[in-house]
Amino acid sequence: MIYPFLLPDMKEEFNLRFEKVKAAMALNECDALLISSTTNIFYLSGCVFRGYVLLLPDREPVWFMVAPSVAPENAPGVFNLRKPEMIPSWMEEHGYPLPLKPGLEFDDLLYSEVERLKSLFPESEFRNGSKIMREARMIKTDYEIAKIKEDGLHQARAYSQVPSCFQPGMTDLELQIEVERILRREGCLGYLRAAGSRMELNLGSVISGDNADVASPYDFAMGGAGVDPSLPVGADGKTIKPGTTVMLDMNGGFNGYQSDMTRTWYLDSVCEEAVKAHECSRIILRELEKIGVPGTPISTLYKRAVEIAEAEGLRDYFMGHVNKAKFIGHGIGIELNEQPVMMERNHQPLQKNMTIALEPKFVIPHVGAVGVENTYRVDDNGLENLTVFPEELQEL
Amino acid sequence: MIYPFLLPDMKEEFNLRFEKVKAAMALNECDALLISSTTNIFYLSGCVFRGYVLLLPDREPVWFMVAPSVAPENAPGVFNLRKPEMIPSWMEEHGYPLPLKPGLEFDDLLYSEVERLKSLFPESEFRNGSKIMREARMIKTDYEIAKIKEDGLHQARAYSQVPSCFQPGMTDLELQIEVERILRREGCLGYLRAAGSRMELNLGSVISGDNADVASPYDFAMGGAGVDPSLPVGADGKTIKPGTTVMLDMNGGFNGYQSDMTRTWYLDSVCEEAVKAHECSRIILRELEKIGVPGTPISTLYKRAVEIAEAEGLRDYFMGHVNKAKFIGHGIGIELNEQPVMMERNHQPLQKNMTIALEPKFVIPHVGAVGVENTYRVDDNGLENLTVFPEELQEL
Repeated sequence: MIYPFLLPDMKEEFNLRFEKVKAAMALNECDALLISSTTNIFYLSGCVFRGYVLLLPDREPVWFMVAPSVAPENAPGVFNLRKPEMIPSWMEEHGYPLPLKPGLEFDDLLYSEVERLKSLFPESEFRNGSKIMREARMIKTDYEIAKIKEDGLHQARAYSQVPSCFQPGMTDLELQIEVERILRREGCLGYLRAAGSRMELNLGSVISGDNADVASPYDFAMGGAGVDPSLPVGADGKTIKPGTTVMLDMNGGFNGYQSDMTRTWYLDSVCEEAVKAHECSRIILRELEKIGVPGTPISTLYKRAVEIAEAEGLRDYFMGHVNKAKFIGHGIGIELNEQPVMMERNHQPLQKNMTIALEPKFVIPHVGAVGVENTYRVDDNGLENLTVFPEELQEL
Repeated sequence: MIYPFLLPDMKEEFNLRFEKVKAAMALNECDALLISSTTNIFYLSGCVFRGYVLLLPDREPVWFMVAPSVAPENAPGVFNLRKPEMIPSWMEEHGYPLPLKPGLEFDDLLYSEVERLKSLFPESEFRNGSKIMREARMIKTDYEIAKIKEDGLHQARAYSQVPSCFQPGMTDLELQIEVERILRREGCLGYLRAAGSRMELNLGSVISGDNADVASPYDFAMGGAGVDPSLPVGADGKTIKPGTTVMLDMNGGFNGYQSDMTRTWYLDSVCEEAVKAHECSRIILRELEKIGVPGTPISTLYKRAVEIAEAEGLRDYFMGHVNKAKFIGHGIGIELNEQPVMMERNHQPLQKNMTIALEPKFVIPHVGAVGVENTYRVDDNGLENLTVFPEELQEL
């Protein structure tokens, strides 16, 4: 097993992250952070193990590994732990102050897990460690951005093979299965990390025709009915019809980070309204790429996107027709849905090295969904696209 | 969207489930159960939606749907809800008593989700609704067993195609990708539901050679290193070598329920010790199938399995070599890891219509994992195999 946090050439990278987390701890008046969710363990260690990371403002981080995970030999700051109940006495023995305002992951761990950890520090006043970690993770390091860019390259290589695996008469699900195979062969890990407990999905979403107008119970811009009531999202198993569009929004996770990229194809022909809406999506992206500089409020980007859709007479179809999503994008990184959420009521300013997916999409009734989604890095001169791949509506 | 709980021919099935849950509520002194996890919503409704199911001992169940999920028109007992904070006033308006001991899903929902729901009933003393639901779900209905049997048939059809998709020189991961495609084309939904927050996996596990001895941080009998530190489990991307075994333990979810089935192949040749251990796995299964009748304590099954492995001189390899799993199986249903856990300290008696996966496996150093896993129903005369497929060690 590789432990990236122990590699000498990764030391600087992890120090950067610890400093970001410590800054967020200070803002949230938190004097110790005890982390055990997979996502945040990965952020602080570069690998997933079973156990805990303990972070105090003026100390080196401590890693506790719980079986079957095992501390590597002679690794400074890494200890084996039988159970979390031993952490307070470990802290006492090692001269750590008992925390008064410890942070626990309220939005990442199960209720019973947090209750168990709370009992370690019965006198303490707890902070939401999930919020602290979300804030720290929102601005990416150069290393993280390079990882997302790498995802984008893989995803683009996979998407370039989509037309070659389509055969007339295929269902949306049959096409999806072939694209899944291509993604997996390109290195896609096949697992989607998402924040919150509600998002359930296989390797992505292929939406064609009327299915674009079906809501799913999850937070997706375009839902889809799915093929079973136990997983009501995405492809519905119907044959892809001539004159409809096929929107692919597939898993872009190849290295612990993710890119999010949507492209749209059509079968045989497509109506002018769909072409116009697809071009409108690209116009919106070009405009947001320009105004998306550090300091621009997110609400401004949202409103500008709606304005453009409105000016083109496409407001009714923007971000859904029967069902409308209330966002045009989202932060992305280790999880698919990170901060910030690109919605009207988010007045937070963009900051340099935020990574965001923008997905101005339209649903044209009986034709399907159209539009483009790219993953971007916020840079001084605007948004840098990390998912470079032809954006045109393409024939299958 | 299909709402199975509203279908007339499903009425009896759901009444059975409600009665089981109400019996578990009574045992746990719970006077109202408010459910919102996907797994338990699916159990009580036959479909997944965003919202809540409210169950009181002497009332009909109530379904609350939260956008984007929408209550179907004229459906008795189904209501749209803007947010959960409206539930107490809804209960008051509809003449429901405010619960004194409500059950919330402590082991299925995030800490912040449960805290939000607790604030609806500030005067109440809460029960762990997850425990109640686990107890109710442990004994399956005939309908549920038929679903798992259906899974087993699909999974067997997929496994029968494994040798045809193997090519010499393949890595374990390349083989896994082809098997994933076969499973998906057979109807596998491509998503794994598991209890707890720690199990992360793509469509399953393909383990070959030395990789069988590598621990993963998750609760799997055989871990595997994986190909990336962000998902350290399963296939490690190495070429499958002659003289090693290849163990497939892939996703068996086709309809909201799952079967769990492991079979083992070998490349070119395999040592006698591996053959012997594989046969020992089958001997253990035959024995447990016989003694696994209602009333037999689970610890008896566990001990009998260890005794047989020991008598064959294979104790050192049983359930792992470098790392040992502490169970020989687990309940299965909607989630991969349901009750009961088949381990030494579980003295609970088997009950009719429990469904359990038994996986007596061995790791032979430098050769790989061997053994068989089947999913069973507990019946009066012993265990009924729901995953019928040749068990022999087969050549790839």
